[in-house]
Amino acid sequence: MKDIYIADLANFEEGKLFNGFFLVLAKQQRTTKNNKPYLNLILGDKTGQLEGRVWELGDPRIAKDFDRGDIVKARGSASRFDDRLQMKIDQLRKANTSEVDKADLMPSTTYDVDDLWRRLLGFIDSFTDADLKLLLTTMLADPTVAGAYREAPAAKQLHHAWLGGLLEHVISLLTLADRVAPHYPILHRDLLLTGVILHDIGKVYELSWEIGFEYTVEGSLLGHIQMGTALAEKTIDSLPNFPPKLKTLVLHMILSHHGKLEFGSPKLPMIPEALALSFIDDLDAKMQAIQVEFDKCIREGKGPDEMTGKVWALDQRQLLNTKRWLEAGGK
Amino acid sequence: MKDIYIADLANFEEGKLFNGFFLVLAKQQRTTKNNKPYLNLILGDKTGQLEGRVWELGDPRIAKDFDRGDIVKARGSASRFDDRLQMKIDQLRKANTSEVDKADLMPSTTYDVDDLWRRLLGFIDSFTDADLKLLLTTMLADPTVAGAYREAPAAKQLHHAWLGGLLEHVISLLTLADRVAPHYPILHRDLLLTGVILHDIGKVYELSWEIGFEYTVEGSLLGHIQMGTALAEKTIDSLPNFPPKLKTLVLHMILSHHGKLEFGSPKLPMIPEALALSFIDDLDAKMQAIQVEFDKCIREGKGPDEMTGKVWALDQRQLLNTKRWLEAGGK
Amino acid sequence: MKDIYIADLANFEEGKLFNGFFLVLAKQQRTTKNNKPYLNLILGDKTGQLEGRVWELGDPRIAKDFDRGDIVKARGSASRFDDRLQMKIDQLRKANTSEVDKADLMPSTTYDVDDLWRRLLGFIDSFTDADLKLLLTTMLADPTVAGAYREAPAAKQLHHAWLGGLLEHVISLLTLADRVAPHYPILHRDLLLTGVILHDIGKVYELSWEIGFEYTVEGSLLGHIQMGTALAEKTIDSLPNFPPKLKTLVLHMILSHHGKLEFGSPKLPMIPEALALSFIDDLDAKMQAIQVEFDKCIREGKGPDEMTGKVWALDQRQLLNTKRWLEAGGK
Amino acid sequence: MKDIYIADLANFEEGKLFNGFFLVLAKQQRTTKNNKPYLNLILGDKTGQLEGRVWELGDPRIAKDFDRGDIVKARGSASRFDDRLQMKIDQLRKANTSEVDKADLMPSTTYDVDDLWRRLLGFIDSFTDADLKLLLTTMLADPTVAGAYREAPAAKQLHHAWLGGLLEHVISLLTLADRVAPHYPILHRDLLLTGVILHDIGKVYELSWEIGFEYTVEGSLLGHIQMGTALAEKTIDSLPNFPPKLKTLVLHMILSHHGKLEFGSPKLPMIPEALALSFIDDLDAKMQAIQVEFDKCIREGKGPDEMTGKVWALDQRQLLNTKRWLEAGGK
Amino acid sequence: MKDIYIADLANFEEGKLFNGFFLVLAKQQRTTKNNKPYLNLILGDKTGQLEGRVWELGDPRIAKDFDRGDIVKARGSASRFDDRLQMKIDQLRKANTSEVDKADLMPSTTYDVDDLWRRLLGFIDSFTDADLKLLLTTMLADPTVAGAYREAPAAKQLHHAWLGGLLEHVISLLTLADRVAPHYPILHRDLLLTGVILHDIGKVYELSWEIGFEYTVEGSLLGHIQMGTALAEKTIDSLPNFPPKLKTLVLHMILSHHGKLEFGSPKLPMIPEALALSFIDDLDAKMQAIQVEFDKCIREGKGPDEMTGKVWALDQRQLLNTKRWLEAGGK
Amino acid sequence: MKDIYIADLANFEEGKLFNGFFLVLAKQQRTTKNNKPYLNLILGDKTGQLEGRVWELGDPRIAKDFDRGDIVKARGSASRFDDRLQMKIDQLRKANTSEVDKADLMPSTTYDVDDLWRRLLGFIDSFTDADLKLLLTTMLADPTVAGAYREAPAAKQLHHAWLGGLLEHVISLLTLADRVAPHYPILHRDLLLTGVILHDIGKVYELSWEIGFEYTVEGSLLGHIQMGTALAEKTIDSLPNFPPKLKTLVLHMILSHHGKLEFGSPKLPMIPEALALSFIDDLDAKMQAIQVEFDKCIREGKGPDEMTGKVWALDQRQLLNTKRWLEAGGK
Repeated sequence: MKDIYIADLANFEEGKLFNGFFLVLAKQQRTTKNNKPYLNLILGDKTGQLEGRVWELGDPRIAKDFDRGDIVKARGSASRFDDRLQMKIDQLRKANTSEVDKADLMPSTTYDVDDLWRRLLGFIDSFTDADLKLLLTTMLADPTVAGAYREAPAAKQLHHAWLGGLLEHVISLLTLADRVAPHYPILHRDLLLTGVILHDIGKVYELSWEIGFEYTVEGSLLGHIQMGTALAEKTIDSLPNFPPKLKTLVLHMILSHHGKLEFGSPKLPMIPEALALSFIDDLDAKMQAIQVEFDKCIREGKGPDEMTGKVWALDQRQLLNTKRWLEAGGK
Repeated sequence: MKDIYIADLANFEEGKLFNGFFLVLAKQQRTTKNNKPYLNLILGDKTGQLEGRVWELGDPRIAKDFDRGDIVKARGSASRFDDRLQMKIDQLRKANTSEVDKADLMPSTTYDVDDLWRRLLGFIDSFTDADLKLLLTTMLADPTVAGAYREAPAAKQLHHAWLGGLLEHVISLLTLADRVAPHYPILHRDLLLTGVILHDIGKVYELSWEIGFEYTVEGSLLGHIQMGTALAEKTIDSLPNFPPKLKTLVLHMILSHHGKLEFGSPKLPMIPEALALSFIDDLDAKMQAIQVEFDKCIREGKGPDEMTGKVWALDQRQLLNTKRWLEAGGK
Repeated sequence: MKDIYIADLANFEEGKLFNGFFLVLAKQQRTTKNNKPYLNLILGDKTGQLEGRVWELGDPRIAKDFDRGDIVKARGSASRFDDRLQMKIDQLRKANTSEVDKADLMPSTTYDVDDLWRRLLGFIDSFTDADLKLLLTTMLADPTVAGAYREAPAAKQLHHAWLGGLLEHVISLLTLADRVAPHYPILHRDLLLTGVILHDIGKVYELSWEIGFEYTVEGSLLGHIQMGTALAEKTIDSLPNFPPKLKTLVLHMILSHHGKLEFGSPKLPMIPEALALSFIDDLDAKMQAIQVEFDKCIREGKGPDEMTGKVWALDQRQLLNTKRWLEAGGK
Repeated sequence: MKDIYIADLANFEEGKLFNGFFLVLAKQQRTTKNNKPYLNLILGDKTGQLEGRVWELGDPRIAKDFDRGDIVKARGSASRFDDRLQMKIDQLRKANTSEVDKADLMPSTTYDVDDLWRRLLGFIDSFTDADLKLLLTTMLADPTVAGAYREAPAAKQLHHAWLGGLLEHVISLLTLADRVAPHYPILHRDLLLTGVILHDIGKVYELSWEIGFEYTVEGSLLGHIQMGTALAEKTIDSLPNFPPKLKTLVLHMILSHHGKLEFGSPKLPMIPEALALSFIDDLDAKMQAIQVEFDKCIREGKGPDEMTGKVWALDQRQLLNTKRWLEAGGK
Repeated sequence: MKDIYIADLANFEEGKLFNGFFLVLAKQQRTTKNNKPYLNLILGDKTGQLEGRVWELGDPRIAKDFDRGDIVKARGSASRFDDRLQMKIDQLRKANTSEVDKADLMPSTTYDVDDLWRRLLGFIDSFTDADLKLLLTTMLADPTVAGAYREAPAAKQLHHAWLGGLLEHVISLLTLADRVAPHYPILHRDLLLTGVILHDIGKVYELSWEIGFEYTVEGSLLGHIQMGTALAEKTIDSLPNFPPKLKTLVLHMILSHHGKLEFGSPKLPMIPEALALSFIDDLDAKMQAIQVEFDKCIREGKGPDEMTGKVWALDQRQLLNTKRWLEAGGK
Repeated sequence: MKDIYIADLANFEEGKLFNGFFLVLAKQQRTTKNNKPYLNLILGDKTGQLEGRVWELGDPRIAKDFDRGDIVKARGSASRFDDRLQMKIDQLRKANTSEVDKADLMPSTTYDVDDLWRRLLGFIDSFTDADLKLLLTTMLADPTVAGAYREAPAAKQLHHAWLGGLLEHVISLLTLADRVAPHYPILHRDLLLTGVILHDIGKVYELSWEIGFEYTVEGSLLGHIQMGTALAEKTIDSLPNFPPKLKTLVLHMILSHHGKLEFGSPKLPMIPEALALSFIDDLDAKMQAIQVEFDKCIREGKGPDEMTGKVWALDQRQLLNTKRWLEAGGK
């Protein structure tokens, strides 16, 4: 396990030494205005990323053989410059993957992925619609798809932006959908849950998460909605007796799940299940983004009377942590 | 019970006689282009409203002493003119309220109101927050408020637009909120449920439902958001020890429940409970509007392959009844 | 050939007899307010559609065995009621398909479809990119696809809304694209032309044009963008060596061709060819809609100083026929 | 009176010494990238705010016992770094409130507040409507309300963002309203003037202005529109015979004064007085913001041909000072 | 003076005879569905317009020699058909212009135009800026311009849509501007008043008001903003010493007076005078539209508790007549 | 010719000396936080602009007599500070205009202006409409207009933002328009080409390009649409027999060419030529902006898999260079 995380450095006394493992997200040689050359690095771990500078390039304690994508062990101290935190690094060597858990270097779910996966399969197992069950079982039996599904983040940065975030988001949604479905008799439960499981599956192609989270070129040009629809269609077409109407409905669930044309859905929800999916997907993403902000406020030492920073996923609104505010009032 | 309803007339053979009780929503004397005078009426019952004409004004079987707001018994036949249905009335007399159940004359909930009310009180009884429980108990102990809450429609025409619709909508929301709350630990369940119970309470002042559903002048100028907030504030201020922070949160729930400024909320949701309320309120209203459209399609004899008419509450979108479509396909 | 067209009736002297073949688009029995039953029909041919009424239901000259979708021969006279034209029909019999050219009953292109098709193949033949040429050749070699492509309208009502309209629109666009492409060296001509040929191909599934132009249920739920993308992807996947990058680009051309998210494209144009396609597609549709309006003005006898009616495809704007206006001024 | 103001420093020769009183708006200890610790302060006075740095922390001339919210006397020199002005402070001591006029430390109205207040009471005195006169007299007789009304800024930063700004804005509006009202006979003058006096009264609760101008938590969650409406309603309800219709109209004036839903008014103006109020309120705020920009241009030495910077309150537009531009042209 | 006006017919007992002068706005021969030919007319006078029908074409009391644009004397009775009022005409003859005051046939200002004109000249006379005074004097000395200015309506239908409406609107605005200008010292009074006088002067070319109010083709293609700017520029260019800066400012006043790009102003107000003009122009138009609606409610017999119909100029909002509502409450 | 360009410095090794001619776009004296005074300059040439600093103010090798707008020869080295490039200058002297080609100091077209001009005249020569030919010949015979037309940039920064950019953009558009016009028979070719030539002619007054590209005050207040329309109108009015209808059409072409009200066109295109002009103008501007971005990517060493930066003219979209991406894939 890592000893020190980037999030910890925020509260670090300036000048105090740290020593830890990081992923190199960017590396660039630069010169100060006094013509002093230095290395500028972006180092990341699962808690965030930070700029670091190496001033003594010739120092033998500074490795020369590392590059973007490598894991390094770096020693230094944090300093603040114009309100921006920065690391001054005095020792740095390339590390190998056995020294550190990769999960510590990229933000990743705090849940047990195997357990999440079992719960996913459990939901599928509960289906009464044999066609939908077969579709999902077939798709997730493909080890490439299953492997990527277990690893993928749910987004580049908005919500569940960590390894395993897609799966975590889907499990949360399945639980919620399973509570909402019986409340409205017009809802076809298995179709709704199928929509939940497939709605973001295109993200396994849209995003790459080797070194940070990036869009692939194909992802930029086609988008996860098209990529997911295509994967679903290909799998369905491989099943000899899949009912054509059900195919249309499954594809419509994926196509329409953003709920608005301007959010990139080419079709608006036109069946009750698609409408319900677009609502709970949006709610879950926002609730999770709020949770992250509340955690961040506590980590950064903000008081209970202070609202969060502006939340991107909520149109730059600032939120108040109800429970914490009430408790601080002695209630 | 009424023998014949306006909705039934849609499928009536033209010329066939009907005979039933209706509420007079409008009454006007007019003349044809051939100078023949006639009476033009708008008659309503719980299933809708229809234009009716009385051609033989001097006929002794046609009463002269009735007016807007009266209940009448009318006999006649339906005819269609340019795709618009119309009643030709040949007998009409004023009825008294003992002859017909008022619930048959105005659209009203199909649920048992006493039962809905018991469930509402049951939810309040389940609160662990004593202040919120006291607030709601106090407010609903006022017989004027309670009486109006049991009767009010939830909207003039968009969703739950019938007597008891407000209560029905709130019970649906409470059930849903009670399922959603435990899913997100940051949610204060009792505050969320309080928001559900109070969010539309201003409608008991915004709308009148004596003869059809109309906005009061005060309702037009102030709106149910302000009226509900004021009622909540007045009740809270009558409770000696209600925590000021909790007051702010309760009022914020009401103020922000439309979720968008352009929908008339003066504040956007800034606490997780308000965000969740705005989502489930919107979802429940839309699901109910869809249910009404699906029922209407079946009543009007549309086939399973036909989409609904354009749904106002869903931006004029047309919807497909998933289950019915699949079943028609032999699935 | 038909003797009389619906468009001709607009200028018909009222009461004068016509006698012609029409397609029955709708049929309904109704009753006047005086309880007189009559048949209400919507009759169509290639120039438009018109309401017709049969008053003498018992008349032996009025057939009883016809239905929606049938071709009939009808005799009657036109009349105008409240500015709306209507046919009064006194003779009507079912016709058989040999009596009339089906192309006369549905609006259809005025171009020779075989010639348009030859020009389409000619453009494909001119490609220097072998992969794209193979893709298009393969796709259009499928007789079902080719048959539908030759028949499909380009839209339900906005532009090129007639049989063969899709092909006519594509040929116009190919000609235009072929002139634009050499003007911008960054454009990949064959990719641009491929985009032109495929951009609306999903309409062969989205629309049905048996009796009038309607959306299929599948078309409503999935849309021609998804349907066309899926067809292209399936064909590409059947070609063993199609370059993956080229596949991404072809699919992106189809996905993005509406140019705006709010017009139903899930992706905005991100390559120069897609941008150019979205521009010329929009321009061609609008120019064609203007041409139709100008023709209509002349047919309806409007003067050169009068602007057109409000053009739907141009946001309800009214246009002026430049050349005609100038000529009327003696210039 | 202060000798030197922050606005003066903008034109200060770099390096020249200043010595003056300031309010400490923020205080933070930091370290340079060379590990040198320093104090970072935000100092303010009525003309603005500026960053200041204390480099010699151990210097006995630098006090240790001051904090955010304190008044200090500081000596130093200004410097410019990357276009940003900064103070280097070499002496600093805590001052007491008797040494400096608090009005010099926070931006505040240049008008005499007592005089503004007298004019406000004079307008109320001129009312012919006894109910409205009683309402306002009662409300402003409350010393807490009156005290806050005299001090409050009109906004956090958009317009009249200074102590006494609310009162100054209201007096300007009253004068304007009194000129506009007789121009339109449909306007109820006293109702319009009542709306002017009450429209922003909620700001006395929405904002805090102890140390800089901030939103209170309650202000963020409820907003000044709700807070002002509630205060008005409570005062009205304390008056035994206030006409209910007049109450509705007064509350509507406050609720609708932003003129658009998207600006946070839950109701659009539906009476002529509310419409007129929303217009003159908006005009006055914009004219005042323009005046501030014109003054700033002159203070910063901009020429008459130069337009202002982008004005936030005018959608980032730049404006030209008409009179100054014309005069510069010799006219 | 006319005996009977179209507005009076709204409250006419059906069948009662009227006899009056009207302007023929449209004339068309039609046939009923029973093949009975009739004349369909649109007749207008200063209070509105109404459809009229002549059933007895051969009747010698019905003139044959009249056409669109003629004045006629018509006798008949009003009837209501499907809520739409209609005139049945049994006598009709062409009238000559001496029989009726043309001002009775087109809606026109209720003010004395000569008096309005004197007030306009009075305002110009009060200018201290000699250049602006010369500009306006020169422009209004042109008898064509002055004649059209006195007659033109201010709009086709939104506000002041009557003969003399432009002048009436301008005088109202001048009075208002003269009250607002001294309130803001940054305003150049004469420039503001010049803007008021010229802002809509292009309407004398944009609209024709010979027979009803219509856009000219040139007006449709260029618009009154461009036409007014061009007229101002041409006049200025004819004045040898007009200051160039002042010319820019005057043109900017006209160009920007709609206040928003989407309302057809190619430039947003960038000087205080232009901003003020756009506000008072909008306010005056809306106040006048409200006045018209209030008058209409009284004329149509609506009660004081009823809101107006949906007002086009106020985004389809409904308004309440404050004073009338309060008075009805005994206040 | 210049030896070194600002664009070259981007890839310069830090510390390496350069020595070249630049235009001084801004000059300011400042002080570091250590009270060291220095000169801050913005230097530009045809490839861009860069901040430069002179640290040794007393050094005799640094001239004292230069100012904004002067050409200087400067020697120094580039350094990077916080990702921003900066020049450190150690020698600087005023240069005279004979030492350097002014075209090297401002970005300017890479085409031969004389040749572009000949092509412009060639297009005019090809007109069959004598009136339009005379209009353009007359206007371009004015040496002031012609001189400015040859020099003006097409925009301040969006597209063709370089000397000669307007002419280059117009020639590109003429070529394109000449290909599009024959494709649509309703288009009046000479009117379309006239629109192309005149649409942006107002930019010769709206922009100044002496030292960088700026809006003139007149340009800011009136805009190039008004300025171009006025120039066209004045020229037309000087031609005795120019047909009035043609004048309306020409002015409409200029007024409506932005295609949308919110882009500053006071009229939407209402003739086919205006619609076509707005499309090809927009397309050409965007294609050119893409070309510039693609060139920049290659210059900055981006790989073929990398998308461009966010393109302002394309709503901040990132684009992919199709041809380069395909080629990199071996295709």
